[in-house]
Amino acid sequence: MTRLLVLHGPNLNMLGVREPSIYGSSGLDAINERLAKRAATAGIDIECFQSNAEHALVDRIQAAPAAGVDGIIINPAAFTHTSVALRDALLAVGTPFIEVHLSNIHAREPFRQHSYLSDIASGVIAGLGPIGYEFALSALLETTQRN
Amino acid sequence: MTRLLVLHGPNLNMLGVREPSIYGSSGLDAINERLAKRAATAGIDIECFQSNAEHALVDRIQAAPAAGVDGIIINPAAFTHTSVALRDALLAVGTPFIEVHLSNIHAREPFRQHSYLSDIASGVIAGLGPIGYEFALSALLETTQRN
Amino acid sequence: MTRLLVLHGPNLNMLGVREPSIYGSSGLDAINERLAKRAATAGIDIECFQSNAEHALVDRIQAAPAAGVDGIIINPAAFTHTSVALRDALLAVGTPFIEVHLSNIHAREPFRQHSYLSDIASGVIAGLGPIGYEFALSALLETTQRN
Amino acid sequence: MTRLLVLHGPNLNMLGVREPSIYGSSGLDAINERLAKRAATAGIDIECFQSNAEHALVDRIQAAPAAGVDGIIINPAAFTHTSVALRDALLAVGTPFIEVHLSNIHAREPFRQHSYLSDIASGVIAGLGPIGYEFALSALLETTQRN
Amino acid sequence: MTRLLVLHGPNLNMLGVREPSIYGSSGLDAINERLAKRAATAGIDIECFQSNAEHALVDRIQAAPAAGVDGIIINPAAFTHTSVALRDALLAVGTPFIEVHLSNIHAREPFRQHSYLSDIASGVIAGLGPIGYEFALSALLETTQRN
Amino acid sequence: MTRLLVLHGPNLNMLGVREPSIYGSSGLDAINERLAKRAATAGIDIECFQSNAEHALVDRIQAAPAAGVDGIIINPAAFTHTSVALRDALLAVGTPFIEVHLSNIHAREPFRQHSYLSDIASGVIAGLGPIGYEFALSALLETTQRN
Amino acid sequence: MTRLLVLHGPNLNMLGVREPSIYGSSGLDAINERLAKRAATAGIDIECFQSNAEHALVDRIQAAPAAGVDGIIINPAAFTHTSVALRDALLAVGTPFIEVHLSNIHAREPFRQHSYLSDIASGVIAGLGPIGYEFALSALLETTQRN
Amino acid sequence: MTRLLVLHGPNLNMLGVREPSIYGSSGLDAINERLAKRAATAGIDIECFQSNAEHALVDRIQAAPAAGVDGIIINPAAFTHTSVALRDALLAVGTPFIEVHLSNIHAREPFRQHSYLSDIASGVIAGLGPIGYEFALSALLETTQRN
Amino acid sequence: MTRLLVLHGPNLNMLGVREPSIYGSSGLDAINERLAKRAATAGIDIECFQSNAEHALVDRIQAAPAAGVDGIIINPAAFTHTSVALRDALLAVGTPFIEVHLSNIHAREPFRQHSYLSDIASGVIAGLGPIGYEFALSALLETTQRN
Amino acid sequence: MTRLLVLHGPNLNMLGVREPSIYGSSGLDAINERLAKRAATAGIDIECFQSNAEHALVDRIQAAPAAGVDGIIINPAAFTHTSVALRDALLAVGTPFIEVHLSNIHAREPFRQHSYLSDIASGVIAGLGPIGYEFALSALLETTQRN
Amino acid sequence: MTRLLVLHGPNLNMLGVREPSIYGSSGLDAINERLAKRAATAGIDIECFQSNAEHALVDRIQAAPAAGVDGIIINPAAFTHTSVALRDALLAVGTPFIEVHLSNIHAREPFRQHSYLSDIASGVIAGLGPIGYEFALSALLETTQRN
Amino acid sequence: MTRLLVLHGPNLNMLGVREPSIYGSSGLDAINERLAKRAATAGIDIECFQSNAEHALVDRIQAAPAAGVDGIIINPAAFTHTSVALRDALLAVGTPFIEVHLSNIHAREPFRQHSYLSDIASGVIAGLGPIGYEFALSALLETTQRN
Repeated sequence: MTRLLVLHGPNLNMLGVREPSIYGSSGLDAINERLAKRAATAGIDIECFQSNAEHALVDRIQAAPAAGVDGIIINPAAFTHTSVALRDALLAVGTPFIEVHLSNIHAREPFRQHSYLSDIASGVIAGLGPIGYEFALSALLETTQRN
Repeated sequence: MTRLLVLHGPNLNMLGVREPSIYGSSGLDAINERLAKRAATAGIDIECFQSNAEHALVDRIQAAPAAGVDGIIINPAAFTHTSVALRDALLAVGTPFIEVHLSNIHAREPFRQHSYLSDIASGVIAGLGPIGYEFALSALLETTQRN
Repeated sequence: MTRLLVLHGPNLNMLGVREPSIYGSSGLDAINERLAKRAATAGIDIECFQSNAEHALVDRIQAAPAAGVDGIIINPAAFTHTSVALRDALLAVGTPFIEVHLSNIHAREPFRQHSYLSDIASGVIAGLGPIGYEFALSALLETTQRN
Repeated sequence: MTRLLVLHGPNLNMLGVREPSIYGSSGLDAINERLAKRAATAGIDIECFQSNAEHALVDRIQAAPAAGVDGIIINPAAFTHTSVALRDALLAVGTPFIEVHLSNIHAREPFRQHSYLSDIASGVIAGLGPIGYEFALSALLETTQRN
Repeated sequence: MTRLLVLHGPNLNMLGVREPSIYGSSGLDAINERLAKRAATAGIDIECFQSNAEHALVDRIQAAPAAGVDGIIINPAAFTHTSVALRDALLAVGTPFIEVHLSNIHAREPFRQHSYLSDIASGVIAGLGPIGYEFALSALLETTQRN
Repeated sequence: MTRLLVLHGPNLNMLGVREPSIYGSSGLDAINERLAKRAATAGIDIECFQSNAEHALVDRIQAAPAAGVDGIIINPAAFTHTSVALRDALLAVGTPFIEVHLSNIHAREPFRQHSYLSDIASGVIAGLGPIGYEFALSALLETTQRN
Repeated sequence: MTRLLVLHGPNLNMLGVREPSIYGSSGLDAINERLAKRAATAGIDIECFQSNAEHALVDRIQAAPAAGVDGIIINPAAFTHTSVALRDALLAVGTPFIEVHLSNIHAREPFRQHSYLSDIASGVIAGLGPIGYEFALSALLETTQRN
Repeated sequence: MTRLLVLHGPNLNMLGVREPSIYGSSGLDAINERLAKRAATAGIDIECFQSNAEHALVDRIQAAPAAGVDGIIINPAAFTHTSVALRDALLAVGTPFIEVHLSNIHAREPFRQHSYLSDIASGVIAGLGPIGYEFALSALLETTQRN
Repeated sequence: MTRLLVLHGPNLNMLGVREPSIYGSSGLDAINERLAKRAATAGIDIECFQSNAEHALVDRIQAAPAAGVDGIIINPAAFTHTSVALRDALLAVGTPFIEVHLSNIHAREPFRQHSYLSDIASGVIAGLGPIGYEFALSALLETTQRN
Repeated sequence: MTRLLVLHGPNLNMLGVREPSIYGSSGLDAINERLAKRAATAGIDIECFQSNAEHALVDRIQAAPAAGVDGIIINPAAFTHTSVALRDALLAVGTPFIEVHLSNIHAREPFRQHSYLSDIASGVIAGLGPIGYEFALSALLETTQRN
Repeated sequence: MTRLLVLHGPNLNMLGVREPSIYGSSGLDAINERLAKRAATAGIDIECFQSNAEHALVDRIQAAPAAGVDGIIINPAAFTHTSVALRDALLAVGTPFIEVHLSNIHAREPFRQHSYLSDIASGVIAGLGPIGYEFALSALLETTQRN
Repeated sequence: MTRLLVLHGPNLNMLGVREPSIYGSSGLDAINERLAKRAATAGIDIECFQSNAEHALVDRIQAAPAAGVDGIIINPAAFTHTSVALRDALLAVGTPFIEVHLSNIHAREPFRQHSYLSDIASGVIAGLGPIGYEFALSALLETTQRN
């Protein structure tokens, strides 16, 4: 059975509250529930985890292989632009992952144009809102089930 | 009835032949057919157009409003990095559009990291192969039908 | 009899429609008509040409000497920032030319600050709207008739 | 009753010990006590919190609105130059804040010239030592009480 | 009655003498006289002022609103590239202004490519010689009389 | 008796008039009066001087030691970003000084991020409006009286 | 039988007319004729094609494999510095090619120092005038016949 | 008795598993055991600590003086390139330290060329694998015992 | 009779007082007197002028030809790095000049490495103290008397 | 009789041994012999010289005019990117020269993209292997015999 | 029997004399003697060579394979930052080498942060003084004897 | 008795021949003779040395203290911009030196604007031709005899 891990970076627990003009009005729970439904329909296992702490996200990535995780969906949020540790964790486990951003990071501050993860990701989805996570799920399914 | 325009930039007519390790083995016709099926299922109108000529793509974008186009999916290929004319055409018509790249442009030459379109796109999908177009179609549908 | 060539770059056929807050509300025909009237009054020959295709503009410039063109007014639009071919064509024919921009390119995106033509132009006029073309016409007249 | 939150970033628990030629000889407790006295006199509520962990500071900022915090004084220390997560947390809650630095960061290493917070702060005070916090308190009082 | 202010920056009193291959052979008085004639014909009020001192130009700009000035033509000369004070003065009074350069600054030293004024100007005219001032006058007239 | 000099740079005489959304609505006289009252209360001598001329400010700084000035509060305004002469004058006299900005210069144009004075100042206060001057006065008092 | 394709970019149809001090006085026909003679002597097939249109050159490159082309000699002219589409076309077909420049691009404007093609070319020849094409022909012959 | 602290940064707990072509096949325990043996032989006290959390490493550094630590060996891993907090902690305690990297960071991604610690380290050892830690131990011994 | 003009820029009136470790202990009068003696010996006319005002120096340069000045010695001090107006004045008059710096500007802040005058000077002398002026005098004499 | 000098820079004596995948398998002697044969056929004089020492190459260039050398073929190897002395020597003698590289320097490390010689060379040939020298010989012959 | 070559770059013959605060007080002979002893103990052959001449060092590296050298320890000193020829020599022979610096180059002038050798070295040791050479010897021994 | 060393870098043996429009027409011998006469008059010892080899110049600098040299005049020519070894040699011996350039390096190629020696020189003289050496001699005399 395919197992996916969904990681949400710092301040994504504020979704719905935080800058709704940029991030939209649906909260993180709503996003996770929609993903859970999709996963149930597809007959796969999914786990969602949010943290404001870089090390907690690194720990989860490190634990992924032992937990039988086949693919990772990660919205690294602020850590996109600052965390080499997340990059190294993802390189260390080698699990395929897709990077998702709710907002269009290309239309924001210049420092948000650079990601420490994109060049090692399977793919990147930005600016499509919550549905971006679902596309990532579909894409990972296709990849992991094809192999 | 919703109407979408799919634009493929230069050298995408070579898909399947061109650097398969980067761009995959399915040809452009296969991609267009899958999109057409999806569109038929969703009850929407779709038109696909490829050109190696910047002006031909600009012409199509300019003609979009009169043709009743509600959204554009564009894989600008090489023009991503060099065409201000495409940017200006998309700004001129104001039609919402999603930028799609088959390969992960973040993992390639540095000059491929910059796009003249991303900051004015609704969203960007990169590295997911042909399925990226289908996600773009779904996302545009959701947007245009919500409005 | 003095003969001038007016070249309009890509998307200028969208004038009046395209981003009126930036480019104003008068269409390209109105601009060309005003220029034609001015030319008639001044007893000179004028021809206006717009294209979204770089090569079509290059062709016109190359043909200018044989067509007896004494001066060129060019609004290169998006090609201002990307076309070395236009630069080379203008260098090749050596016809004096004035670069015109309807909007104030200095108040827009950083990439619009650089022009491949300005340093070889006789002069540059930006931000004055359609009247900028008329000033260019007057200036070229003064130059070409003085010589 | 006005309520302010004072946040001290990493290594500020070392004040008095750490590089006294740069940071001065008074410890963090002394600074907090002076602020508490000032707050008592002004009849406002104040809470001080130091952490070496980015996520702990992010958590506190996220909790500020629910805790009725009207303004934040933050000395982000090392995180000034590296933490997009703190920036995003402050943007998320929208609480007005003032950035304080004990030392004159402009007279130190080049990487200390850039702050991820300054452009979204109400104001910035640098180089005045512990009294800088007190000025920040006065300024926030004036602002929050004026509104 | 419309009133315009013409400001000439440092060393423009040397016109005719100074580097004639770059700046042409007509002196500043000749330029001012032509402008005065134009203004008289158009039934408007015009005043010309040259100074080598930044503060004298700043003073004149600050005094413009009280003097009933409707528009400013400024050739900031060397101050184009170095004076934030002129920028701030023009921002402070909010009077519309056009930036004029006799020579084609794009064809000269790299440091002459940057202007502290262009992005807040109504328009910019460069390289057309003395007639550039007259175009600026016409353009300002059109603007100020239209409002 | 302690003696302080307050220097206001170019265009600060326009305060209250100039861009009130950035600089606030109180005029320079109001600011100077509040400072004078504070000084009177503290039993110190204070003198305020504004000029649009760099040399006038340089002259005042040079004269400070002979005038018995113990500390300088300077809002260099536009000269912050362009005047090495002010830097050299302050280095020459060696009088301790605090740099004050009414607006948050970090939230404005990129060229306002660099100051020729900050790294040699005792401290910098930005974005707090007129009260910033008063904090500077308090801070200088503390410093000069401690010594 | 070996078959070579010679591609000439924009404005090379102006050779002999265009800036003879830089590009020499022989026209494009003369160059093509000399190449044809050389090819005839060597018993190989050669076709020469010039275009001012990027897409026309891209089309020719794409068609090369089907046309049995064993090697390409390309003088991309202005497109050297601006065309990712040409690069992508050459990458797509994988035909070995040599980049030729008549003038010494290293001795000209800085933007002419960068080529989008050189790093994927078999070799680069610059500054030798028309004979450079003949060397390219010899080099390609040696390569293609050796394989 | 000399006491040394060995700090391992994020993802070093994955050694042996993580990218063995870069980091080698020996695990962190093996490294620590070899160091412990060396320390026993040399009659010194050694403690090893790994964490994925920046704050945990900062805490250990801050605690070093009180714990009687004479020298620190640190492999900051990903934090090398992103952590000013570690730099500040090391500056705060002033304990001499040596920076160790298992892999040759000079042969990897450009962002790995910059270290926030190297310029304040006693020395830097990179690319020698696990033996690098042992050299660091020897070097610190020589230094601390000499003093 | 040869006539030389010696110009001293801002803060040079503070010589002897200002940062003696950098600028030495002799005052400006002493320097001027030594130059005057040298000039008298050489039978030439010399005039020295110091100002903190850029425009005053510009005025003097502009007046030089009419005053029969054959050569200029200028220590532009802070204006070295900021004044295009001085550059333009010197270009306007065309009088040969030598740039002198008392201190070694190459050993100071990075912004002091760039001069707006050096590339149009006859020569540059830096770091030799007051004797640098005398060398400049000798060099100008040699040049102007040779012509 | 025409006389040519062929200069080979450092490490070219290692050809055939050194990185054959980049530099090919023919040794320097083979290259020199082929050149000698070509020269004999063409009835010209040729001398080949290799050195690892910059000064030895400089000496040879300086001696070229006295030795009656009409043209120089130089493969500066590593000195391409680091030697201003070679540039100055070639400028000093003014002998026309062609720069040859065996490998395609554009496809290698970024620092190999810059040459201190290219902009003063008659032409540049890169990436064609040993035959590049022969083309250089032919080109120089054509040039020197035409003059 | 293992054979190592130790190369010392320019000015290292001045050790003990040259800037002892940076480079320490032991001379080069002392360093070489300690290395010789270590080598004798380890039963390996070692040769030390110092030169101020780049070509002499290049010659030695080129000769290494024929001399049976298994590994190189190189302190390139000033050539670290300027010599592509040394890089090419080391690439040509392919002998594993370790780069050693006595001083901590990261704490010195910015140009000392870049090495032309580090990315092709087996490892780099900096700032540990003479003992760094001994560590390099140990590391090379381990490597060469393991193979 | 004071002893000075005059060092001339590469290609200065070509003076009089080499680019006379830049370097003037007097040869190196003439320069050395004038210096020798000056030295004789002043009763000091002088030695002049030219080399195209960096190591030969380094050797001379290293030998200076033992030879009783009190000051060095160096025209490093091309090595100005490329030689860290010369810098290190001058730092190693600590002998005061003056850098001389015949031409105005500020008016030449951008790479000639940077010197590896200027910031550690006592002073720099550029653009004054051969007399520059004589000024350097006078300045060194003054310095060395004052001490």
